[in-house]
Amino acid sequence: MMTIDLNCDLGESYGAYTIGNDEGLLQVATSANIACGFHAGDPHIMRQTVKRALHYNVVIGAHPGFPDLNGFGRRSMALSPEEVYDIVLYQVGALQAFVHAEGGRLSHVKPHGALYNMAAREMTLAAAIAGAIAALDPSLVLYGLSGSRLIEAGGAAGLKTASEVFADRTYQQDGSLTPRGNRNALITDENAALRQALEMVKYGSVRTVQGNRIQIQADTLCIHGDGAHALAFAKRIRQAFEQEGITASPL
Amino acid sequence: MMTIDLNCDLGESYGAYTIGNDEGLLQVATSANIACGFHAGDPHIMRQTVKRALHYNVVIGAHPGFPDLNGFGRRSMALSPEEVYDIVLYQVGALQAFVHAEGGRLSHVKPHGALYNMAAREMTLAAAIAGAIAALDPSLVLYGLSGSRLIEAGGAAGLKTASEVFADRTYQQDGSLTPRGNRNALITDENAALRQALEMVKYGSVRTVQGNRIQIQADTLCIHGDGAHALAFAKRIRQAFEQEGITASPL
Amino acid sequence: MMTIDLNCDLGESYGAYTIGNDEGLLQVATSANIACGFHAGDPHIMRQTVKRALHYNVVIGAHPGFPDLNGFGRRSMALSPEEVYDIVLYQVGALQAFVHAEGGRLSHVKPHGALYNMAAREMTLAAAIAGAIAALDPSLVLYGLSGSRLIEAGGAAGLKTASEVFADRTYQQDGSLTPRGNRNALITDENAALRQALEMVKYGSVRTVQGNRIQIQADTLCIHGDGAHALAFAKRIRQAFEQEGITASPL
Amino acid sequence: MMTIDLNCDLGESYGAYTIGNDEGLLQVATSANIACGFHAGDPHIMRQTVKRALHYNVVIGAHPGFPDLNGFGRRSMALSPEEVYDIVLYQVGALQAFVHAEGGRLSHVKPHGALYNMAAREMTLAAAIAGAIAALDPSLVLYGLSGSRLIEAGGAAGLKTASEVFADRTYQQDGSLTPRGNRNALITDENAALRQALEMVKYGSVRTVQGNRIQIQADTLCIHGDGAHALAFAKRIRQAFEQEGITASPL
Repeated sequence: MMTIDLNCDLGESYGAYTIGNDEGLLQVATSANIACGFHAGDPHIMRQTVKRALHYNVVIGAHPGFPDLNGFGRRSMALSPEEVYDIVLYQVGALQAFVHAEGGRLSHVKPHGALYNMAAREMTLAAAIAGAIAALDPSLVLYGLSGSRLIEAGGAAGLKTASEVFADRTYQQDGSLTPRGNRNALITDENAALRQALEMVKYGSVRTVQGNRIQIQADTLCIHGDGAHALAFAKRIRQAFEQEGITASPL
Repeated sequence: MMTIDLNCDLGESYGAYTIGNDEGLLQVATSANIACGFHAGDPHIMRQTVKRALHYNVVIGAHPGFPDLNGFGRRSMALSPEEVYDIVLYQVGALQAFVHAEGGRLSHVKPHGALYNMAAREMTLAAAIAGAIAALDPSLVLYGLSGSRLIEAGGAAGLKTASEVFADRTYQQDGSLTPRGNRNALITDENAALRQALEMVKYGSVRTVQGNRIQIQADTLCIHGDGAHALAFAKRIRQAFEQEGITASPL
Repeated sequence: MMTIDLNCDLGESYGAYTIGNDEGLLQVATSANIACGFHAGDPHIMRQTVKRALHYNVVIGAHPGFPDLNGFGRRSMALSPEEVYDIVLYQVGALQAFVHAEGGRLSHVKPHGALYNMAAREMTLAAAIAGAIAALDPSLVLYGLSGSRLIEAGGAAGLKTASEVFADRTYQQDGSLTPRGNRNALITDENAALRQALEMVKYGSVRTVQGNRIQIQADTLCIHGDGAHALAFAKRIRQAFEQEGITASPL
Repeated sequence: MMTIDLNCDLGESYGAYTIGNDEGLLQVATSANIACGFHAGDPHIMRQTVKRALHYNVVIGAHPGFPDLNGFGRRSMALSPEEVYDIVLYQVGALQAFVHAEGGRLSHVKPHGALYNMAAREMTLAAAIAGAIAALDPSLVLYGLSGSRLIEAGGAAGLKTASEVFADRTYQQDGSLTPRGNRNALITDENAALRQALEMVKYGSVRTVQGNRIQIQADTLCIHGDGAHALAFAKRIRQAFEQEGITASPL
């Protein structure tokens, strides 16, 4: 039986500021990456979000990011590998405390935003992230961009990894995502996005912007909840998988 | 055989800023309270400090504080008990990750500064702190001001507690510390401070500013390292204890 | 001709987080208090908000708060008068730069949240705020709770002051607001709130919760924009004033 | 008569953390760049430092940096030009308030650390910085690396500029500094550093690591105060200039 994990970013609210559609996403996703207070989230939001994820029986992961709340962790920062190791360990530990206190289990780690993107390309940062996770708990699964340095570093550190794919992003010949700045970075046609998601999961392949078909490992698909539309599309993807006999299920 | 724990605050540097005499203190103290990044410390400092404490075989505790780096956690903040619960859990979890990653064991928690002082007096805050620790790991020891609400709350939450006493602070009739603002809050005469420390530990009593002798539980004594002088005095206290047959030893 | 200033808090968004209904409020208010990056707002939001206020020809003030983004400046913090002086000067200066760069003029300062409330009661804090403003630009108007220490301190520092009143809060015999925790702190009946607002502005009096009528100075009325409802009520108040021949106009 | 400005970074302490030798530097420097609370400094330190600079009659400038206290503003951050514009305006405005409140005058702006280095190379960032300063007060002088984009952008924005040179850094053929990572980036021989400083200021030239002599504009020389040694060297440089008939004097 084929399965696919549907992961989502969660708990990105902060203090008086509310963002995202956590309640809706928890009804579609099978795993959740919870912000840890550096790029988003705060201790109170973290506890609430952990409780909510446990309530919906969604698998919990940590979502560490750069220490840049004002930039939502989306701005590259020139941290040394050692600094990256330290901020990942700190954030994962903080989230783990909430998970343990609520009687749950932390299952994975997915870096956020600029940290995710930098670790996809730079082996020293990728190795720092993998090393921090392995030092803390080698049973944690490392989520990273499919085909990226982060997946490679996770394997080298002895971690289980989950290769992440995107329904609504186009791919380059080398398996990387087309940078967001580019004209054709996004797949805005929902049917095309759906087809790409299905192809990646069923056949392990994707058609690049150059027109070729390349192999791609698809363990987990990223879903969004910003706006009623994104959530509706996430539900549609889940249904489409199930119609094809692919069960949405955590790793 | 009589023993006394000598605890010190550690890892209070931040980024490019260095503070304290961690190396010196680790050679006198038997337990260390390591700052967790809210009032002092940062992920890098935390890892370094944990490694250093393990190197010197000093017992490691978390030292959570208010989210107020600029005030060094010394300014009271009107956080709700729920917010206090959350910030304690977050910080202890973050430090615990470094301790685990370095192969050590977290043994205790001592709140810092204004959080420590407020929790000494206010039961709801004290209970929030004790509750967070009990939810995370009920084997953690809670350090608090001897005779305070925090010790009471720790007991009520089923935690082991360590009653902290001070050599250089005067005591009131009800066992509380004379507020720092007061003229006679500090014992500046080293011999008097030494005598007070010995009396508290040997006989479980202290002479108050009102001139009476009251009972006081003394499980752990706070030592400082600011300046060569403070460290020299800490060493002198340790020697004095040992001359009296009281071994400096963690709980 | 009678006039009343209608002031509102503005620019409280932060980074990726959007809060408030700034566009709507600017069409009802005559003066705006813009957050300065400590309890809310950031440099980018500040510039945008200043431009927007200038566009709508709404008078601009600074809205400094405690350095507590996570608590939205609503949690009391035990800052010394000197620290309060410094954080007010810092924040007002930062906002003033945006106002000058956009070709506008800063007209007033209204402390936010817990800082506002503490300065209403404590003369040393009130004097620190007034002193910072007077040192920077003695032509700035200080907004404070009507009848409070802050108004008193403003006068003593030689500043023009604006006594603020609230339509939807009840008053105590001494002119203070009934604390929010109390059962009868809020006036939830819109008509009653409207009547109170009109009475305060027209006759300079208000009926206290004890049932007496006391005198109250009403230079500026606080309006809110949270939710379509609050904004609709703000518009209704403005219309009601105008029907009574009271012009909504900045000081 | 020849003159040279000796500038130093000042006010980099933070809360309980003290760094630098401000008192010493103020007795050697002719202009001071005061940290503005983002990479270092805080409102209290800023006021103290402004007062101290005024006391020593040292010309005051703002020293804005990236919002990265933990990295001391030394880590590159991928801020957009618009974000850079906003953080510069914010910080310069905040410092200006302290200067005005103390009866002084703000004379210049020198970006700090990674912001300085990025603006030396990237025209869009350089133009953002220059634009923010010009919008606030076109009489402010912009300090930047001699021959860099920042100097170019300052001129284009109609600002007076001060070209900064370094005694202890080696230069490349194109006038840029040898990157710190390189083996020969620093001039550790004090006599060589002194000779380079004198040559740059007297003759407007410098010998590159490639062995050629290139032209260089030298309006201001950066001096440091970290450690008794750095300060002693700064004094020696000032004396050497004066022996050559070059007066240390602000621009």
